[in-house]
Amino acid sequence: MKIAILGGDGFCGWPASLHLSDLDHEVTIVDNLSRRTIDEQLQVQSLTPIRPLSERRAAWEEVSGNRIGFEFIDIAQDYEALLDFLRSWQPDAVVHFAEQRAAPYSMKSPRTKRYTVDNNVNATHHLLCAVVESGLDIHVVHLGTMGVYGYGTAGMKIPEGYLDVEVRAEDSTQEQPQRIPQQILYPTNPGSIYHMTKVLDQHLFAYYAKNDALRITDLHQGIIWGTHTEQTQRDERLINRFDYDGDYGTVLNRFLMQAAVGYPLTVHGTGGQTRAFIHIQDMVRCVQIALENPPATGDRVKIFNQMTETHRVRDLAEMVARIAGATVEMVPNPRHESAENELHVVNQAFLDLGLEPTTLSEGLLREVEQIARRYRDRADLDRIPATSTWTRNQQAGVPSSVTAQPAG
Amino acid sequence: MKIAILGGDGFCGWPASLHLSDLDHEVTIVDNLSRRTIDEQLQVQSLTPIRPLSERRAAWEEVSGNRIGFEFIDIAQDYEALLDFLRSWQPDAVVHFAEQRAAPYSMKSPRTKRYTVDNNVNATHHLLCAVVESGLDIHVVHLGTMGVYGYGTAGMKIPEGYLDVEVRAEDSTQEQPQRIPQQILYPTNPGSIYHMTKVLDQHLFAYYAKNDALRITDLHQGIIWGTHTEQTQRDERLINRFDYDGDYGTVLNRFLMQAAVGYPLTVHGTGGQTRAFIHIQDMVRCVQIALENPPATGDRVKIFNQMTETHRVRDLAEMVARIAGATVEMVPNPRHESAENELHVVNQAFLDLGLEPTTLSEGLLREVEQIARRYRDRADLDRIPATSTWTRNQQAGVPSSVTAQPAG
Ligand SMILES: NC(=O)c1ccc[n+]([C@@H]2O[C@H](COP(=O)([O-])OP(=O)(O)OC[C@H]3O[C@@H](n4cnc5c(N)ncnc54)[C@H](O)[C@@H]3O)[C@@H](O)[C@H]2O)c1
Ligand SMILES: NC(=O)c1ccc[n+]([C@@H]2O[C@H](COP(=O)([O-])OP(=O)(O)OC[C@H]3O[C@@H](n4cnc5c(N)ncnc54)[C@H](O)[C@@H]3O)[C@@H](O)[C@H]2O)c1
Repeated sequence: MKIAILGGDGFCGWPASLHLSDLDHEVTIVDNLSRRTIDEQLQVQSLTPIRPLSERRAAWEEVSGNRIGFEFIDIAQDYEALLDFLRSWQPDAVVHFAEQRAAPYSMKSPRTKRYTVDNNVNATHHLLCAVVESGLDIHVVHLGTMGVYGYGTAGMKIPEGYLDVEVRAEDSTQEQPQRIPQQILYPTNPGSIYHMTKVLDQHLFAYYAKNDALRITDLHQGIIWGTHTEQTQRDERLINRFDYDGDYGTVLNRFLMQAAVGYPLTVHGTGGQTRAFIHIQDMVRCVQIALENPPATGDRVKIFNQMTETHRVRDLAEMVARIAGATVEMVPNPRHESAENELHVVNQAFLDLGLEPTTLSEGLLREVEQIARRYRDRADLDRIPATSTWTRNQQAGVPSSVTAQPAG
Repeated sequence: MKIAILGGDGFCGWPASLHLSDLDHEVTIVDNLSRRTIDEQLQVQSLTPIRPLSERRAAWEEVSGNRIGFEFIDIAQDYEALLDFLRSWQPDAVVHFAEQRAAPYSMKSPRTKRYTVDNNVNATHHLLCAVVESGLDIHVVHLGTMGVYGYGTAGMKIPEGYLDVEVRAEDSTQEQPQRIPQQILYPTNPGSIYHMTKVLDQHLFAYYAKNDALRITDLHQGIIWGTHTEQTQRDERLINRFDYDGDYGTVLNRFLMQAAVGYPLTVHGTGGQTRAFIHIQDMVRCVQIALENPPATGDRVKIFNQMTETHRVRDLAEMVARIAGATVEMVPNPRHESAENELHVVNQAFLDLGLEPTTLSEGLLREVEQIARRYRDRADLDRIPATSTWTRNQQAGVPSSVTAQPAG
């Protein structure tokens, strides 16, 4: 297959590009390198020494004999370049990772809120519009998030995108309720501007699948953990990024980093929030499986829950603390969310298609040793705490420019 | 009250500005005059001789003694100007009409699709973000559309924004179904890119109401008919716009125009689509009522169905034909929609708050005489048919620039 990876220089996009190239697919990365620019603005860097994309690509060709192409395009800004690329390269599928993906960054200032909405909505819409205009039958695979569902579904399992509900018919009575069964997009409850953009994406996909019969797969992904995949560890120049700062570092990476440098692990609130997780090696396999199992023309959007296990944040902290020999500390939660939640998720579709999950309890020690301890001298300890204010009431006195407010 | 009218030079915004000014509210219009620019691009003009905004405002001051302010701002492009305006003028409420509002225009070309999404999403998001950043407690009233509901709800009345559903609990059995009642945003089914942007707006509102406790009212409006309000008819320089072209002319206006010039009335498909309508005089009253009844801080978005009657398109055509002495002709439907639909809508909230609807059967003759016949010599008959292609399959050979493809 010819596969374009939008956002292929990023944390998920780079290992996905290598994995698909290793399977002998033709791969071209499309990226505007905005993630690297944001690192510079925030004055942080990946814990792991990631190389410039040109060096990464050259190293991969050396190691594997396979070439990965590259197009420098801002897909949210330069529609014509995106369209020209699709028309000339004619991919069979596009995997769309190219969005601003950090919830804390999206809440940092009015500027980052606006950037996140503008970048993510236009990136997704341009892609859909360009696929229609190209006239090509391109399968679009998008990375969404489990976060669109919201986290407060007492007594219900989160299905894969669509929810069965019953609605009372107009002429039904209290004694004789007439119920009409319907299947609807799962009602959303996003917890940040970033998550909200993924809700907007869902509606863009639903529309284009219905109106233009585009073939679209949306992967509602849990929080990724782990750094290496089979390919990224073949050569240090292929190493993947590891973010641990308060904006881009996901919860597990921040715990690992804190443990590696001998800090207490900071848990927000009671740590009672339950989150869904998946290892990066499983993520690249899921993307492969999704590409191999596209929806048919005319189908509604195919939605997978791309996660393998759920954990309460405090249990996660304890797990890391135990493995790495650290302590746990509770701090106030900056987010407007319920303190405790249950999370039961259906993820049968990928399991049925052959996914064999890597579990946290197996892989965590490797991550501590191979990444957090190994590169801890590169860490800037001031960058670990999260400082974005989340709501209007907390906001007094926050400067509006992100460059003026580093993550520490 | 101090009320800012975003999009106050438009078809709805202008009469709403006059109505609120006449009630002695302080009114400032914010507009980038993009609607007039689009008329130029499409090479069409309002049937009625609308005046430049400066002349309209001067005439209103002459007639009423009340001044209406004006700020030339593109709210989707110039966030800082919008924020500065809110901070310095400090409105109590903002009525947000400032979006690209024609479904056929939104489907005309890739350029108009992208413009509609970019303009509408950023306009709405900038407003919400600026209200939060201003720190002011501004009530936001937005004009949405009945079109977000989609038009195919057999056996159900469309409620005002929120739908009661029941979900089966995880541990319930076939014999003993445990049902969990929930109230959700009504599942959407937009029929065009334009309608889809209103779905995206809904999710922006839900998020900001929840996260930042903004007070937001969303008016799910039916198709407006009628041209004059009590204020616009006081002086010809105050006259409102009347669009009859294939892009911006709504179904009733196109019928009126066709009848006035002695053409047959063209009905798409079977004309079995049912639509919701409201007279422009009732629209301005509804906006007033919404402003006088804001949600409380912390409430979810308050949603009203702003419509007063529903009609099948073919019945509407017959009604106009009868009044104006014309014939009806059936033509193929360019939209991807069901040929026939029922539409039962709850609109109790406005009726309870005192709205007394103007009915089509009373007002239609006046519209034929005072507008369509009176100004028919200004009509460009080539502009009446709609020509946007709606889906990928119809699209072959359509030029991508709207200026190159006039509405005729
Ligand atoms: N990392 C996670 O835990 C996680 C969890 C759930 C979902 N996701 C989703 O997966 C996707 C990838 O996430 P990631 O962690 O790899 O993020 P990342 O920031 O590391 O990578 C995103 C890449 O997209 C590029 N990009 C952004 N905007 C672009 C634009 N307008 N034009 C071209 N390129 C652009 C960036 O330069 C970057 O290389 C995102 O959509 C994210 O929401 C990630
Ligand atoms: N006319 C109807 O039948 C109808 C029905 C349902 C809903 N609505 C909604 O009511 C609102 C007003 O509709 P209308 O018929 O008056 O449309 P209109 O096009 O006549 O008016 C919209 C006004 O907003 C301005 N505008 C657009 N984008 C702007 C921007 N970025 N910055 C500043 N100004 C901007 C335009 O210049 C114009 O004056 C729209 O949101 C529309 O979706 C209208």
